[in-house]
Amino acid sequence: MDKSIQKLQWKGRSFVEELKQRILRDGKVRGSNEVLKVDSFLNHQMDVPFLQAIGQAFRQRFEGCPVDRILTIEASGIGIACLAAPAFGNPPVVFAKKNKTKNIAGDVYISQVESFTQSKRPYNIFVSKEFLHPGERVLLIDDFLANGSALNALIDIVHQAGAEVVGAGIVIEKAFQPGGERIRGQGIRVESLARIASMSEETGVVFCD
Amino acid sequence: MDKSIQKLQWKGRSFVEELKQRILRDGKVRGSNEVLKVDSFLNHQMDVPFLQAIGQAFRQRFEGCPVDRILTIEASGIGIACLAAPAFGNPPVVFAKKNKTKNIAGDVYISQVESFTQSKRPYNIFVSKEFLHPGERVLLIDDFLANGSALNALIDIVHQAGAEVVGAGIVIEKAFQPGGERIRGQGIRVESLARIASMSEETGVVFCD
Repeated sequence: MDKSIQKLQWKGRSFVEELKQRILRDGKVRGSNEVLKVDSFLNHQMDVPFLQAIGQAFRQRFEGCPVDRILTIEASGIGIACLAAPAFGNPPVVFAKKNKTKNIAGDVYISQVESFTQSKRPYNIFVSKEFLHPGERVLLIDDFLANGSALNALIDIVHQAGAEVVGAGIVIEKAFQPGGERIRGQGIRVESLARIASMSEETGVVFCD
Repeated sequence: MDKSIQKLQWKGRSFVEELKQRILRDGKVRGSNEVLKVDSFLNHQMDVPFLQAIGQAFRQRFEGCPVDRILTIEASGIGIACLAAPAFGNPPVVFAKKNKTKNIAGDVYISQVESFTQSKRPYNIFVSKEFLHPGERVLLIDDFLANGSALNALIDIVHQAGAEVVGAGIVIEKAFQPGGERIRGQGIRVESLARIASMSEETGVVFCD
């Protein structure tokens, strides 16, 4: 059994530095400014203590901000959001669904996620109206921010509900793509733990700071 | 803000009894022996302390069984599995993916999930070979067990990897459907916290014991 995933220590230096080291060590870059695979710890295999520390890092960024609810999107965001919830006093965690199943029209908030890859079509995400209420202070959490299409759809859903976006906690922002700038330009607070300036198979990952 | 989700107490009686009460209180039955919606606490909105207690209940059922890895399936299983992991000493949590994306053939274990509803087709689930190894003792976790098609596919993937199924921790088993019996008949240990004998809009949910 490979126990290395559990042995990672991040005491003695900031967790964000540790996250960057983990991305450099375990991340796999494909193409130039295209795909960064971090599925060994973040979004296929999940390193639970590491994700708990990500949650604490989000809490530090949003220190003093009351959070009534955490909203994320299936599937990669779910584990991160659930493991962040204790750091925020365990508000309910809701994930937006990608496939409309048993709900009937009218009982869900719907928003469309644009797609920037040729192979994918735009798709709708849904949140039941039961689980998002006017006036609630909602923290958005997701693994990646690139073009911002998924995050934009979550923001739209929060606004449809008459609720308030506290901000967005993002693990990895591809800062060479326009999503972060656009969403910050709307006055939404975006806190990305690791911001990538550029990446390629040759140079690897280069962080913004 | 609705804080009721956080106030639930389950001290003083067994958590399984509390789970049943929660299903009776918050579950919504559609049709006769068809759909049970528990999306207010389990699989759309997630009550994090309640899911942590589910994890502890799984640990009690699998007392003394070493677990090297937890395997679940997107999307509903992810939150439950991540929040159960601490009770098992934080083994890596892996979720089987429903959509094949950037992986190339050969680097994933694949199994087909049959579908028992007319509207849905069979679909494949995938786990990267990097995240499942021969000899590992794997605990399967999921929200529902009905026909057992998803659980069967997970078991198949564990066996493809040469790993061992410790058992399956299921939150709600629809015992009127054949999945549980079939999978136990293969010698797999299935521990379902709440087992439903029958359910309908008229009679509500009737548990096995």
